[in-house]
Amino acid sequence: MKNEFHFRPIGVVCSPYKEKFAVPRQPNLVKQAKGIIQLYSEYSDPNAVKGLSGFSHIWLQFVFDQVPDNKWQASVRPPRLGGNDKIGVFASRSPFRPNPIGLSVVELKSVDIGKEQISLHIQGLDLVDGTPILDIKPYVEYVDSIQNTAAGFVNGKPEQINNVTFTPLALDFLRRFSRDFDYEFELIKQVLSQDPRPAYKKHKVDDKTYSVLLLDYDVKFNVLFSEQNQTTAAIQVSQIVNVAKV
Amino acid sequence: MKNEFHFRPIGVVCSPYKEKFAVPRQPNLVKQAKGIIQLYSEYSDPNAVKGLSGFSHIWLQFVFDQVPDNKWQASVRPPRLGGNDKIGVFASRSPFRPNPIGLSVVELKSVDIGKEQISLHIQGLDLVDGTPILDIKPYVEYVDSIQNTAAGFVNGKPEQINNVTFTPLALDFLRRFSRDFDYEFELIKQVLSQDPRPAYKKHKVDDKTYSVLLLDYDVKFNVLFSEQNQTTAAIQVSQIVNVAKV
Repeated sequence: MKNEFHFRPIGVVCSPYKEKFAVPRQPNLVKQAKGIIQLYSEYSDPNAVKGLSGFSHIWLQFVFDQVPDNKWQASVRPPRLGGNDKIGVFASRSPFRPNPIGLSVVELKSVDIGKEQISLHIQGLDLVDGTPILDIKPYVEYVDSIQNTAAGFVNGKPEQINNVTFTPLALDFLRRFSRDFDYEFELIKQVLSQDPRPAYKKHKVDDKTYSVLLLDYDVKFNVLFSEQNQTTAAIQVSQIVNVAKV
Repeated sequence: MKNEFHFRPIGVVCSPYKEKFAVPRQPNLVKQAKGIIQLYSEYSDPNAVKGLSGFSHIWLQFVFDQVPDNKWQASVRPPRLGGNDKIGVFASRSPFRPNPIGLSVVELKSVDIGKEQISLHIQGLDLVDGTPILDIKPYVEYVDSIQNTAAGFVNGKPEQINNVTFTPLALDFLRRFSRDFDYEFELIKQVLSQDPRPAYKKHKVDDKTYSVLLLDYDVKFNVLFSEQNQTTAAIQVSQIVNVAKV
């Protein structure tokens, strides 16, 4: 048996998530997030995507290319367990795997066949900008959708912080510089509602200002007590800075 | 960006399907089929599978290692379309992909932690014996199970031939040589009910005797008219030969 296999990316993801920090931990947690898969020229053959637009969802098999080589770990601390308990890497979806191959199902909005390049417009992605794509497969419900499964330590969707607000200055900035205010406002809110801080800070308030590269912005935020309920955290966007390449 | 990624198998599948012919075209079509994933020693660390047995289903990412190198095709003829119409490779699950990576969800029956090796007992697999496994991930229902999807040319499960019978001689052979008659009898029936012949023969009767390597046997079968209904095919197992390595 061969003991090594070589794979080449078929394309690359353009994503609003410009860095690992704050990327949702699963697809479709931030349904709003729009992205594009650009197929490389060798694979931008209209025949290769014939019939694909008939599918509402697709599987992406991709490379966790921001994990340093040989950094797999037998045990990981999933965010779901607050970063305290350890679980086996094969019982998790941690990127620190023996083979850093990721798996995501995303919504397929359209297939754009250009003269030079084929682009797939997708929604609900959880991939960092620039992620190499190894394969695209149709989501087939009778095969892939299994109900009443046992899912170990995972119980439904993770909690969200629903109270995400903007300071007047941050909101004003976004109004002036956004190309699509409603989309960008909602996306920032949805991403932050996942509480992107390290897992051990879950349910805790701290006085640090965090910074996340999202869309063309550096979005700075703080985690506060909510006024109504001292045990529930709220997130406030305190500043937005344009970092788009000019 | 790196333009090539190297992956090493973490383990190998032991499967009742000893050759490509007659392997079900999706997982869980032959629910009966039992297999084992044997993790290689480097990955047979009990820590790496901690918590895994809490999941009823797992994803396998594997290599279609029986596809010759560089044999990808932009267009494929899926069996679902009778092998007549072409569809894009990315709209199909054909093994002839740019990167021959497969994806299957299977039932996880047990995790066996031996002194030297960890084995995962699985059911409903659709993998050829000896398939290299690249990754194992838990099936997480709130992420992976999507309902009311659009699935292009795929409409539910493929048709089956329900009328699979054995000649008295074949049945007698199986009774004498099987280690677990009920399991082996049911498995042979379920595999053949998928009509493993080439797609263009679907709904057609022919006078050829087919042969499939399954379990420890060479199972020979014919496709016949059913007596009740001339338009419905029936499959008859005509001979079973033991091919187990002695």
